Amino acid sequence: MPSTTTLSADEAALREGFAAWSRALEAKDIDAMMANYADDIVLYDIKPPYVIRGKAAYRQIWEQCLPYFPEKFLSEHRDIVIQISGDLAVAHGVHRLKPIEPADHPCGTTWFRFTGSFRKEGGRWIVTHEHISVPYNPMTEKVWYITDPDDLSAPEWGPRCE
Amino acid sequence: MPSTTTLSADEAALREGFAAWSRALEAKDIDAMMANYADDIVLYDIKPPYVIRGKAAYRQIWEQCLPYFPEKFLSEHRDIVIQISGDLAVAHGVHRLKPIEPADHPCGTTWFRFTGSFRKEGGRWIVTHEHISVPYNPMTEKVWYITDPDDLSAPEWGPRCE
Repeated sequence: MPSTTTLSADEAALREGFAAWSRALEAKDIDAMMANYADDIVLYDIKPPYVIRGKAAYRQIWEQCLPYFPEKFLSEHRDIVIQISGDLAVAHGVHRLKPIEPADHPCGTTWFRFTGSFRKEGGRWIVTHEHISVPYNPMTEKVWYITDPDDLSAPEWGPRCE
Repeated sequence: MPSTTTLSADEAALREGFAAWSRALEAKDIDAMMANYADDIVLYDIKPPYVIRGKAAYRQIWEQCLPYFPEKFLSEHRDIVIQISGDLAVAHGVHRLKPIEPADHPCGTTWFRFTGSFRKEGGRWIVTHEHISVPYNPMTEKVWYITDPDDLSAPEWGPRCE
């Protein structure tokens, strides 16, 4: 994380990009959400298939999912750490949807971990790769939801590990 | 992926790093495995807790897990894509353990997706972040194993998505 409160112009632009993407998601505006995805993006999504290649395929995911999102919700990131060198940047952190209407919509069950890489093209940061996940318990093969990012709990493992 | 067969010296060094780490893992040599991890590494592991901060905590994970690994196994990566700019690099791909003795050890059940970021320090590439996961089926909350990276199947979703 930055050791001072002064962000570089690139880091500020990347952080504004996260915020702008959240506002676009809240508005279910797929065009705005996709505006900064590379044509050759490689996505490791939370759901299968395990890899999605290309902006057109990624767009289909959003088109299929957004109708099942709540009427009203917030998109929130936290703990974002960004590294930048020249025209390459990488960021990681956690993200969640916070349902408002209805407030008990299941999309609010967990935070998600994300890692993204970015390429600067014509002064603009483009997303080239995203990896989104939750961990799981190998003993039960069930996901281990992140209900509170300040809670670092883990199950009792028993004799097997991995 | 590189469009020619000539890799830059940095990409060659990073690819050699993946291979060297695999040989160290196969030898269960934790010191060699940890040699290129940053002290402040941030790990999003396959298992909870959802985030592990620092080399000492990461080392503990390996110390706890390795006794449960097979007597003999291979560590394999594929589909590695690397981007480099200056002293920053980011890589993604898939990784698996292939058990040999015993050949039916459960560690061979799935490939894992990984994304890693790297910082060049004193001419050496250091791992600053790793994100390792499998996808899951939100309908059942069960993981969706990657038994064959060429198989891009997904479950039938039913009415809910995300």
